[in-house]
Amino acid sequence: MIKIAVDAMGGDHAPQAIVEGALAAVQTYSDIQILLYGDQDQIQALLPEGDYPIEIIHCSEKIAGDDEPVRAIRRKKDASMVVAAKAVKKGQAHALVSAGNTGALLAAGTLLVGRIKGIDRPALLGTLPNLRESGESFVLVDMGANADAKAKQLWENALMGNQYAKDVLGKRQPRVGLLNNGSEDTKGNKVTKEAFELLSQEEQIHFIGNVESRDILAGVCDVVVSDGFTGNAVLKAIEGTAKEILTLVSHSLKSGNLQTKLGALLIKNSLKETLGQFDIESVGGATLFGVKAPVIKCHGNASAKTVAATIGQARQIVKSGTYDSLAQQIANKESQTED
Amino acid sequence: MIKIAVDAMGGDHAPQAIVEGALAAVQTYSDIQILLYGDQDQIQALLPEGDYPIEIIHCSEKIAGDDEPVRAIRRKKDASMVVAAKAVKKGQAHALVSAGNTGALLAAGTLLVGRIKGIDRPALLGTLPNLRESGESFVLVDMGANADAKAKQLWENALMGNQYAKDVLGKRQPRVGLLNNGSEDTKGNKVTKEAFELLSQEEQIHFIGNVESRDILAGVCDVVVSDGFTGNAVLKAIEGTAKEILTLVSHSLKSGNLQTKLGALLIKNSLKETLGQFDIESVGGATLFGVKAPVIKCHGNASAKTVAATIGQARQIVKSGTYDSLAQQIANKESQTED
Repeated sequence: MIKIAVDAMGGDHAPQAIVEGALAAVQTYSDIQILLYGDQDQIQALLPEGDYPIEIIHCSEKIAGDDEPVRAIRRKKDASMVVAAKAVKKGQAHALVSAGNTGALLAAGTLLVGRIKGIDRPALLGTLPNLRESGESFVLVDMGANADAKAKQLWENALMGNQYAKDVLGKRQPRVGLLNNGSEDTKGNKVTKEAFELLSQEEQIHFIGNVESRDILAGVCDVVVSDGFTGNAVLKAIEGTAKEILTLVSHSLKSGNLQTKLGALLIKNSLKETLGQFDIESVGGATLFGVKAPVIKCHGNASAKTVAATIGQARQIVKSGTYDSLAQQIANKESQTED
Repeated sequence: MIKIAVDAMGGDHAPQAIVEGALAAVQTYSDIQILLYGDQDQIQALLPEGDYPIEIIHCSEKIAGDDEPVRAIRRKKDASMVVAAKAVKKGQAHALVSAGNTGALLAAGTLLVGRIKGIDRPALLGTLPNLRESGESFVLVDMGANADAKAKQLWENALMGNQYAKDVLGKRQPRVGLLNNGSEDTKGNKVTKEAFELLSQEEQIHFIGNVESRDILAGVCDVVVSDGFTGNAVLKAIEGTAKEILTLVSHSLKSGNLQTKLGALLIKNSLKETLGQFDIESVGGATLFGVKAPVIKCHGNASAKTVAATIGQARQIVKSGTYDSLAQQIANKESQTED
């Protein structure tokens, strides 16, 4: 059984969306068990009677969206997120899922679950769809954990993305690209120029050079390596553009003349299919990689559907064994360097 | 008459697309005169007989796409881009337009046309459509001139974007936002946190705080302030997403069943209208701001249509007087600081 610790009190629609998502997840997957951390009474009231592999662990506190992350993690010792993270650290659960305060979750992952040896800065890793090949996706790392990254940390991100793309996406030899301001080898700012050198010398990855953000959705590579500031900006630019352009399309269809409206009616299903690929809600979350066990962030306004998808993602990540593979891979590198 | 210097030899389709674009521009605008810099014979062969306000200035060299920018500017003294930039510096033309090597054009602008006093780093400024309000647009600055910006340079970008939004877009009190990894005041990396403080204290702009890339196309502000690396990444992410999603929509329409195809036929015009807003080809270029006269970069693969649009944009910028207003504004600030 895969045990997943879920912070029932984090997110805009907590605890209801979280509890409903957990219920949906245990109904979908027969090999998981969920530990729900939070207010016993509130959670209990949301669970219908019956027999589910869901256990409630009562916590008297919760971390708010505007709490200062590190301070909150240290002071609120009985907060649902903190207790859940400690349970993962102790091996009582295989992974942690939370829709709460992102900064606090990153701090909980790094400080409570703990970094693996050889990774200075854990990174937020997520997948986006390759729009040219249905069903394929690529990894973007870092989506926002480390806003002031140095070249060494971009190299760490590359190793992490590579491992994840192999183990979770099943890419045999992931094509790793460095997100840059031009595709030529000489492009970049100080940090990316230095990172380019490091990645060119790294034999354990298939480095294809610099890539531009305009080509990533077309599947130019399997792993997009970035600092957390730029990765975050690119991710949100993609989300925003997709949202605005689809709003624009559906608006121009609705406000059109009779001919346009009739056309819109006929293509509704086809459009819906297209829209589905950008439904961030059903895609799940971003995972903090480089720590000892999966810590997965759900969108703050996650619905029950999203929470269930993120729990499913946590299950998949645990089953892939990628967190242990990364630790092993980094340990091997370190021992080689010492030789 | 507004005189515009055009580098006839820069860009993937030069000189043909450039010469045809220049011809289209003088037919559209009666108040412009174009100086075409490049190979006399090649240009002449492309111009039909007749009387146009187009003058050819023969240049024996040209800057290639892969030339090292600063070296090329210094060594190729008779290159079309170099001679054209010097003409602008001497006041023989009001603005420079080129679809050639971006780095070389930035160097030509900064080193040959020259920075204005008080601006350390000129920035590439461009406009994008506000998709929530038809006909409205916003400024993104910097789109890629300065990949390693410090906080002081983000402050310069804010002043430049503000001036442009007033003079060219006609915004009375532009809302200036700092592109960041969250909208809260405390968000950011080292540079944006410091820039936030500088902008908060700047009385000459209406600073609305941090903005996220997911909200900019929805018109969250009139001026988006960024370093050149992130601005470039966000711009290209928007372009790429728009392109891929529209390809996806039209593909899913084409490959659908009879019903979908019939629907697609009926809504074709409506979709075309939507697509038009993302036609970067007809939007024109990005302008190097903070130098003494407008230096405008056209896309490298610019068609004649794009070249004509960019020349039209150069005309509009010259007419707005925004380059002189910025110089005046910065001079006033400097004299206040000295008091």
